[in-house]
Amino acid sequence: MEEVIQSLIQPADSKIVMLVMDGVGGIPNNGKTELQAADKPHLDKLAQKAETGMLTPIYPGITPGSGPGHFGLFGYDPIKYNIGRGVLSALGINFPLQSGDLAARINFCTVDTEGKVTDRRAGRISNEECSRICDKINDNIEGVPGVEIFLRPVKEHRALLVLRGKPFCEKIRETDPQKTGVPPLKPEALIDDARPTSQMLEKIISQVKTVLQDEPQANMILLRGFAEYRRFPGFFERYGLKAQALASYPMYKGISRLLGMEVLEGLGSLEEEFNALKENFDRYDFFFVHVKYTDSSGEDGDFHKKVKMIEKVDAFIPQIEALKPDVLVVSADHSTPSPMARHSWHPVPVLMKSPYARVDGVKAFDEESCLRGSIGQMLSYQFFTYMLANADRLQKYGA
Amino acid sequence: MEEVIQSLIQPADSKIVMLVMDGVGGIPNNGKTELQAADKPHLDKLAQKAETGMLTPIYPGITPGSGPGHFGLFGYDPIKYNIGRGVLSALGINFPLQSGDLAARINFCTVDTEGKVTDRRAGRISNEECSRICDKINDNIEGVPGVEIFLRPVKEHRALLVLRGKPFCEKIRETDPQKTGVPPLKPEALIDDARPTSQMLEKIISQVKTVLQDEPQANMILLRGFAEYRRFPGFFERYGLKAQALASYPMYKGISRLLGMEVLEGLGSLEEEFNALKENFDRYDFFFVHVKYTDSSGEDGDFHKKVKMIEKVDAFIPQIEALKPDVLVVSADHSTPSPMARHSWHPVPVLMKSPYARVDGVKAFDEESCLRGSIGQMLSYQFFTYMLANADRLQKYGA
Repeated sequence: MEEVIQSLIQPADSKIVMLVMDGVGGIPNNGKTELQAADKPHLDKLAQKAETGMLTPIYPGITPGSGPGHFGLFGYDPIKYNIGRGVLSALGINFPLQSGDLAARINFCTVDTEGKVTDRRAGRISNEECSRICDKINDNIEGVPGVEIFLRPVKEHRALLVLRGKPFCEKIRETDPQKTGVPPLKPEALIDDARPTSQMLEKIISQVKTVLQDEPQANMILLRGFAEYRRFPGFFERYGLKAQALASYPMYKGISRLLGMEVLEGLGSLEEEFNALKENFDRYDFFFVHVKYTDSSGEDGDFHKKVKMIEKVDAFIPQIEALKPDVLVVSADHSTPSPMARHSWHPVPVLMKSPYARVDGVKAFDEESCLRGSIGQMLSYQFFTYMLANADRLQKYGA
Repeated sequence: MEEVIQSLIQPADSKIVMLVMDGVGGIPNNGKTELQAADKPHLDKLAQKAETGMLTPIYPGITPGSGPGHFGLFGYDPIKYNIGRGVLSALGINFPLQSGDLAARINFCTVDTEGKVTDRRAGRISNEECSRICDKINDNIEGVPGVEIFLRPVKEHRALLVLRGKPFCEKIRETDPQKTGVPPLKPEALIDDARPTSQMLEKIISQVKTVLQDEPQANMILLRGFAEYRRFPGFFERYGLKAQALASYPMYKGISRLLGMEVLEGLGSLEEEFNALKENFDRYDFFFVHVKYTDSSGEDGDFHKKVKMIEKVDAFIPQIEALKPDVLVVSADHSTPSPMARHSWHPVPVLMKSPYARVDGVKAFDEESCLRGSIGQMLSYQFFTYMLANADRLQKYGA
């Protein structure tokens, strides 16, 4: 189907804005979801002029991480375009991955004299400590012939490992034993092809241990999320869309860059994102505007804060509408119900204003109302094609 | 899935009528779609006794041509059973294709003394001129050993080319340069296997140019939509259904014939189609009744005419009901919203009356009402199986 869609792409002058309210979907708390509890006159008015529906991010019952959730919204089947955690971690800190690189997440940990893990998080060392230790390893590690080794701090005890220069295989067992009192696991090859990578990793881990032997806390590493980096076909290649990402968090910028969007750096607040949208509106076809705080308040389990965040976003809707995009989509990458305080599998509401919208009588932008909308229910990645049609960017199939 | 369904087919005495109101789906115009604006008491009453739902013709956002739209309604996955434009063109003029034939669309064009295209439509020559020129080529072309060459007029500057007698490959670049001032493109092989076909086509084009060299307008051909004709499994083979098509337009008759339906020739008006349904009701299991004018009025952008056409069809509903078919389906191959004046991707409403209908409280046959029906939302080609079940033509799966 992907090939068929790509063969139907046609150029157009239309402009598309996709506003992603991260994790906005919820479950009722005292009878109302966060969207139902919020006072959001602009979103509701928009829903009344739009088509609405429900999107299932990955597959019924599957809770998406941030990567797959966004991939789906961007029309990339998140099962096919699976992106390993190591690579996501690298994208999150804007590490310039090259095709063929092997990335892995590092947890610094503490081991005792027998090599048994005593603290899987090395006492949650500070970001500064993490930086210092990464530098120490980069400067002192002996290395493996033909392989470049990069360590980069992420946050607290978390860091990134990237290997470059050989053909690697990601089918390696994670070394985190998931409990204390035992040594780290070996980076075993899960398939035969992974043996050379496994042997390199064993050497590197052993060298790191030597470099860190005098450290009081972070004296060992645990490796997780081994992932080879491969280039994905980008927005322009697949859709003919010149796309810009307006996001403040590194992870979302990284995902956008991976898909060939131009990322505007230096954005912090919502105000800055929406101002940037206005300033750049003439220069791109597609705009991804990312709102983080609906998700983070949900993850904090803070119902009222999430409601407030929705209301805050609502106030910016007239600013988007004033730009008169041909297609305006509001949706989410996944649900983060505050009563659950984590991502969930629940479908997310979507609204789309377009010149061709089959307006459906839905009066509000929330989970219950949008269930009755004329977009119906579909997988997130299928919706992108539907949106492209509304932007006059797809030819007819067959005669 | 297709094999599973075929293995479950069982014979039955049931009769099925599928009324296809071509392009009947719409988008609101002053708040109402054509179906919502029409006074159609019989269709609405039927919806109240039926199950209703929404069908997506191909895939979310994909606008179907007439071929794929009907294939979907007939239970043929339109991506798998892709039918090339050349073959559709041949079906449209009832050219008797044989398995293995290569068909292509011809546009007669005008080239200057340097061979550059000056008019891609040869001044839109008349149908008579088109006939005369096709005959001239058929009579005078030198030909290629072992290959039969057929040229047939279609309409104005459009004609059909069919090659027969060799193994052909359709992976050939179209020769229409899509602009004037440049020569036609060569019929290049897009894959290695297409080289012999490409060479034959080069010879044929060159011979045609020689035959037409003294013509003032149509002195060259452009070839598009190369398509091999392969036989598809027909209605009887797949479903055990003896099927009859009641349609007045050549394209729909062609599609029906391709799927093994018997086509009643000589039908013009709706009256004739519905009278034929009555006369032939004892002789077939499945009847495809095709209404063209809902689509053509939509393509004309004529909202009121489309409304009138819906009302005209509505008046025939009692005549169908009087025949007491076991299953009566009313739907469409795609939407043709008159505000868009073209086919669109919007899902189409469907109603099905059957002894087993889960009647759903839907009061009217239109896009918004049927969205709430108990058929739910599915792809058009999946609906056919659902319909077969309602006609007692599918066994239980598993014990």
